[in-house]
Amino acid sequence: MSMKKLFLFATFVTLSLLSAKADQINDKASYVNPMIGTEGMGHTFPGACAPFGIVQLSPDTDTIPHNINGVYQGKVYEYCAGYQYTDNTIVGFSHTHLSGTGHSDLGDLLIMPQTGALQLNPGTKENPDGGYRQRFSHDTEKASPGYYSVVLEDTGVKAQLTATQRVGVHKYTYPEGKDQRIILDLLHGLYNYDGKVLWSTLRVENDTLLTGYRITDGWARTNYTYFAISFSKPMSSYGYQDRKPENYVGFWRKFDRYHNFPDMAGRSMVAYFNFDKNQSSDLVVKVALSAVSTEGALKNLQYETSGKSFENICQETRQAWNRELSVIDCKGTDDQLAMLYTSLYHTMINPSIYMDVDRQYRGVDGNIHIANDFDNYTVFSVWDTYRAEHPLLGLLKPSRNTNMVKSMIHHQQQQALGMLPVWSLMGNEGWCMTGYHAVTVLADAIVKGIDINKDEALKAMVQTATNIYFPSVKDYMRLGYAPYDTDDTAASNTLEYSFDDWTIYAAAKAIGNEQVALEFQKRALYYRNTFDNTIGFASPRYLNGEFKKELDPYQTYGEGFIEGNSWNFSFHAPQDVYGLMQCMGGEQAFLDKLNRLFVMDLPEKYYADNEDITADCLVGGYVHGNEPSHHVPYLYAWTSTPWKTQEWLRTILNKMYRNHIRGLGGNDDCGQMSAWYIFSTLGFYPVTPGSDQYVLGAPYMPEMKITLENGNVVEIKAPNVSDKNRYVQRVRINGKPYSKLYITHDQLVEGCVIEFDMGSSPNKKRGLALSDKPYSLTQGR
Amino acid sequence: MSMKKLFLFATFVTLSLLSAKADQINDKASYVNPMIGTEGMGHTFPGACAPFGIVQLSPDTDTIPHNINGVYQGKVYEYCAGYQYTDNTIVGFSHTHLSGTGHSDLGDLLIMPQTGALQLNPGTKENPDGGYRQRFSHDTEKASPGYYSVVLEDTGVKAQLTATQRVGVHKYTYPEGKDQRIILDLLHGLYNYDGKVLWSTLRVENDTLLTGYRITDGWARTNYTYFAISFSKPMSSYGYQDRKPENYVGFWRKFDRYHNFPDMAGRSMVAYFNFDKNQSSDLVVKVALSAVSTEGALKNLQYETSGKSFENICQETRQAWNRELSVIDCKGTDDQLAMLYTSLYHTMINPSIYMDVDRQYRGVDGNIHIANDFDNYTVFSVWDTYRAEHPLLGLLKPSRNTNMVKSMIHHQQQQALGMLPVWSLMGNEGWCMTGYHAVTVLADAIVKGIDINKDEALKAMVQTATNIYFPSVKDYMRLGYAPYDTDDTAASNTLEYSFDDWTIYAAAKAIGNEQVALEFQKRALYYRNTFDNTIGFASPRYLNGEFKKELDPYQTYGEGFIEGNSWNFSFHAPQDVYGLMQCMGGEQAFLDKLNRLFVMDLPEKYYADNEDITADCLVGGYVHGNEPSHHVPYLYAWTSTPWKTQEWLRTILNKMYRNHIRGLGGNDDCGQMSAWYIFSTLGFYPVTPGSDQYVLGAPYMPEMKITLENGNVVEIKAPNVSDKNRYVQRVRINGKPYSKLYITHDQLVEGCVIEFDMGSSPNKKRGLALSDKPYSLTQGR
Repeated sequence: MSMKKLFLFATFVTLSLLSAKADQINDKASYVNPMIGTEGMGHTFPGACAPFGIVQLSPDTDTIPHNINGVYQGKVYEYCAGYQYTDNTIVGFSHTHLSGTGHSDLGDLLIMPQTGALQLNPGTKENPDGGYRQRFSHDTEKASPGYYSVVLEDTGVKAQLTATQRVGVHKYTYPEGKDQRIILDLLHGLYNYDGKVLWSTLRVENDTLLTGYRITDGWARTNYTYFAISFSKPMSSYGYQDRKPENYVGFWRKFDRYHNFPDMAGRSMVAYFNFDKNQSSDLVVKVALSAVSTEGALKNLQYETSGKSFENICQETRQAWNRELSVIDCKGTDDQLAMLYTSLYHTMINPSIYMDVDRQYRGVDGNIHIANDFDNYTVFSVWDTYRAEHPLLGLLKPSRNTNMVKSMIHHQQQQALGMLPVWSLMGNEGWCMTGYHAVTVLADAIVKGIDINKDEALKAMVQTATNIYFPSVKDYMRLGYAPYDTDDTAASNTLEYSFDDWTIYAAAKAIGNEQVALEFQKRALYYRNTFDNTIGFASPRYLNGEFKKELDPYQTYGEGFIEGNSWNFSFHAPQDVYGLMQCMGGEQAFLDKLNRLFVMDLPEKYYADNEDITADCLVGGYVHGNEPSHHVPYLYAWTSTPWKTQEWLRTILNKMYRNHIRGLGGNDDCGQMSAWYIFSTLGFYPVTPGSDQYVLGAPYMPEMKITLENGNVVEIKAPNVSDKNRYVQRVRINGKPYSKLYITHDQLVEGCVIEFDMGSSPNKKRGLALSDKPYSLTQGR
Repeated sequence: MSMKKLFLFATFVTLSLLSAKADQINDKASYVNPMIGTEGMGHTFPGACAPFGIVQLSPDTDTIPHNINGVYQGKVYEYCAGYQYTDNTIVGFSHTHLSGTGHSDLGDLLIMPQTGALQLNPGTKENPDGGYRQRFSHDTEKASPGYYSVVLEDTGVKAQLTATQRVGVHKYTYPEGKDQRIILDLLHGLYNYDGKVLWSTLRVENDTLLTGYRITDGWARTNYTYFAISFSKPMSSYGYQDRKPENYVGFWRKFDRYHNFPDMAGRSMVAYFNFDKNQSSDLVVKVALSAVSTEGALKNLQYETSGKSFENICQETRQAWNRELSVIDCKGTDDQLAMLYTSLYHTMINPSIYMDVDRQYRGVDGNIHIANDFDNYTVFSVWDTYRAEHPLLGLLKPSRNTNMVKSMIHHQQQQALGMLPVWSLMGNEGWCMTGYHAVTVLADAIVKGIDINKDEALKAMVQTATNIYFPSVKDYMRLGYAPYDTDDTAASNTLEYSFDDWTIYAAAKAIGNEQVALEFQKRALYYRNTFDNTIGFASPRYLNGEFKKELDPYQTYGEGFIEGNSWNFSFHAPQDVYGLMQCMGGEQAFLDKLNRLFVMDLPEKYYADNEDITADCLVGGYVHGNEPSHHVPYLYAWTSTPWKTQEWLRTILNKMYRNHIRGLGGNDDCGQMSAWYIFSTLGFYPVTPGSDQYVLGAPYMPEMKITLENGNVVEIKAPNVSDKNRYVQRVRINGKPYSKLYITHDQLVEGCVIEFDMGSSPNKKRGLALSDKPYSLTQGR
């Protein structure tokens, strides 16, 4: 597929849906290309959603089960978001998707239009005619914020999708004279397997209204998806099939419950609904979700869509996106604008609102709570998002980030182990990945002045970081490191815990709790305990104090680290970069290593069989596709060659972020990859969340402007920036020369103009004074 | 087992638990023998419960699954209440049981104490050592209202049980020096089968508190049992086993979640909890239930048992039973008193309260509602209980019956088909048995002056009786009868619908809704359409108007009737007895048939293979063990030989109700059998619920006194009654001679003294005048 064709996606505006008076300049949504990352590793989806909504209504292009009778089926990883651009059939349109994850779930409530013979099985990619799936061509596919459409070739039905936060809206236009039917598959799902659907119900309230729910046991261990579905015209008949026989029928046998019987339930239901073809060629289906009850779903349906046409909703959602996206104005090339606004778009899909319009939500204790004084969010991929996604939201959308922090604290209070979220997924704890990085999200917000009960927050943080159920925490507290004897990822765990601990120290300091600060200041240096000084690398360590013999620092898996090799992970002490240098043998050794990272030739064997790493996400041995390296290009700031950050940043930005279906150099990970892009294009990055500092890099575009929630404006100007002019010569803030290598959160919040003079060769003298250097816990260089 | 030994159960009072000052005369509970009906057909349970409570904590003596891979396992019918007296092992103590049903479910949350080696399987009756079940002897077994105890022989643990309405309380006394453990089997159930447990969770809140829930798909299609369990001392360790492998483990694999891990979930969990044997030999376990949430269960636990010892609770529940049982005072033999108070006890187990102490409950729509202006009840076995159980509660406990009626109306408003309950089971519609008899419960209450919104009630009744989803209703409305072509029980359905329709007519008349009255007056005579006048029997009829050829009126199954043969069911028109006589060929033909019913010799082949009918429940061909005959002995009132009612009643009372483990001549059916006993011993019976009349029979004991809720008293005196003096000579009410064969509800509610002069031969002249006869829709005799 040519870049030209793809550009069409980026600039295609569903003009027919927009008011003719729409101000094109303010229509940031027109820059967004939801197709970016839909092939290969990005794991993004092209469908329709509202900002931070719980509904992501999107086509699923395959249904590879996660396992069959316990045997892993292989390619499911590719379908984390349900869609791969290279596929040529669509199974249907389901209502919940994760954006950019490397593990998955959801795909709830698949709907597919149908004409002709009734087919209740999805069929296969190889034989789409054997099921309800249909062929499609990208030529008919259109995707923009809050809108997706495609023509389903096997029937000729045109499908259009839009969504509010809690309601997915379908508009199907059937060819004249053809039967009109939709399939509702309650068994479909992503990362699906036999037995995942524990139970489902379906109730016909009247001839245009359904309610029901399903409970799944997946990555979200107990996931309740209640729904209310309205049709724009009455159904003429309906029914369902159970794909698996029932264990027990009971007295329901007295009914013909498979045909036109309004009270359906089972473990494997696929339902169908027929409509009169003579009434109208259009069918609008509104599907409201709730995790609470069908009553909640009905309220959501009513509040968000009552009396509104498909076109109304589509337009309102686009306006909602424009409001969110207008936080940044910028000048750049079309591709740069597409990438920037698509990135911004990707940072505002997850986390997702997780409560009904009446403020009821299902807590991680399984019970129903009322969010009286906050908005409840879910989908916290914290191992990823503590780095840049939450700091970005904290800067651009502080009200939302405050609600996310409050959601995390409620999670901690409701969760059986008493831990802050590790991976919050639809009111469940999913435990994916390592560390207890939610403490960092809280600490970062506290240090930056969030308005919450800080003592309560600190208590939640301490309980999380001392939780003896969590892998190795008990040993870590006793030994000062996670032992490799019992912990496969002992080395990275030690590094991650130690950093998280530093953030607790920072928060405790900010609050004035000296006792907690003292305890966690000590733990903030535990990262040193997993450094093998004989080799200058972080390395897993045994209970007896010895390090792993023959560490392969290039190898990502099996060496004591998670999603990162020792080469990358050894730089994971952003709280104490000077101390880290000592671990590596001093500044020069540190610099040698850092320089080499970006230029080394990583042998292919180290990523050939790795589903996380491809050549696309490498710069030398630097792996941008996984998160542990994300702060590493900025570590030059602490060295004698800070300009090297500027050099590598632009290389990474150019390579890893392209306005292309394969344009993402790795999983977007619920906005973390995109948040990195946004910060790095702005010219600064939160290397050490939990401090109030952003380390300066170099702006990517000549003019950018942030309009903050408080009305203040941050202007970033770099008029002569280019691939060639990537080096910062001088910086002025509010017109005054600025020598530091970092700026603070307060400087930004107060509004400022940051001017960068750029040049084609580095200013090697800038930022060498100790007073210009960013924070480090110890100064022992 | 000798009668003498059984008598011990009846009179055994847990004196140690009672205040020394307890007034023995008011301790009606001391007469109750919960063992009555625990062998054979009674299907009662011996365990502990509070009046109308949702908890019935009782030993289960076997675990025969309902089916294995769809193959029916046979003997499960015997275990409807979980207990058969002839068994000699106890599997454990579970918290929910139906009283006297012929179909079953529940048996939720089985707990069993254990010492020594950990065993997590129940084992079998043949080899109890292969599991956690234990042998027991009836010698150590004690049962009284709200109390049950037994010594478990394999461990020597003494188990004592008591209950509040929402909390089951266990007290286990372990032998000195032995390990102390309890098993919590979340897979156990009655009418169990593979796949019935859809999901269960278990959460250790702290070392003395558990919460969790399970969802089962059984007779109650989606049954949510949330729980909160407190221990009187801290657990020292715990864990669980999954009897079936998990489909998907996800990231839970990072924990050793089978041992001391507080966040458990699965489809087949059996958990154990160990306690320090040195702390105390007693362990008290309180298990609170809720259908709403674990939060609801915690509130129930707190409100009903906080700060109370096992002994406190046991005493309070006994007092609660005494308050309920004191509605009737009577004089009689010890066996008569045991039977009367046990019957009264059995009428007050089901229906059961189905809401939390904060008034939240789960409706039949699956959603959570708040019962602001009523108490929500479940377990309505309406086919059985519309006859005498609800009329009895309407007389003795009108406040409760009002709440039950309101619960039924809310059920109708929440149910997918819009029907009043057919079999309300734990917030589900269970559809067991036939007819829409809840309309009769409502009509009976309306005619007797219940304080509800009567228009709303009538609307619910009409919607129910015109519900086209319900078997044959559409045809019944069109043809005037249910057609046998498509309806296996067409004849009994026609009889039942027609009677129910008459009650709608009666209610509409009472309310003054002439339009509805007119419509249903017509339907009240539809019973005639299923009478084959050529044979004088009700008989199933085909669409073409023809009757079944070669009807076998002795055969219960396969002849167009349900749980009754044509011989019994043909008398099912209590709304129009004179009309019924015409169907049979006039009064003499009717009388010949009625006379023959009680003396015929029913060949054994007609009940040999029938799980519902045994010789125990027969008087001639009259089957007392199933309900359709219950009003039949009273039909003599409409004939020229009303005294025959008196003759047969005493025969039935003596044969079917005995203070013995086999003392019930059929399933107690949620109190219907027992309610029949109580009415019949009082000397009157609601032959035609929906009218305000009770037909007089003959009192069974010399003195009985009802203290009504309004404070008024009904005294029934028959000083010289005996098996010999079973015939009524004269009746006086409030000292005045009374010639009618019925009394009205108002007469009772105002309080009265009814005196019966009894004699050894019938007064054949009494009650012959038409003006003394009970109600009949038509007078055409």
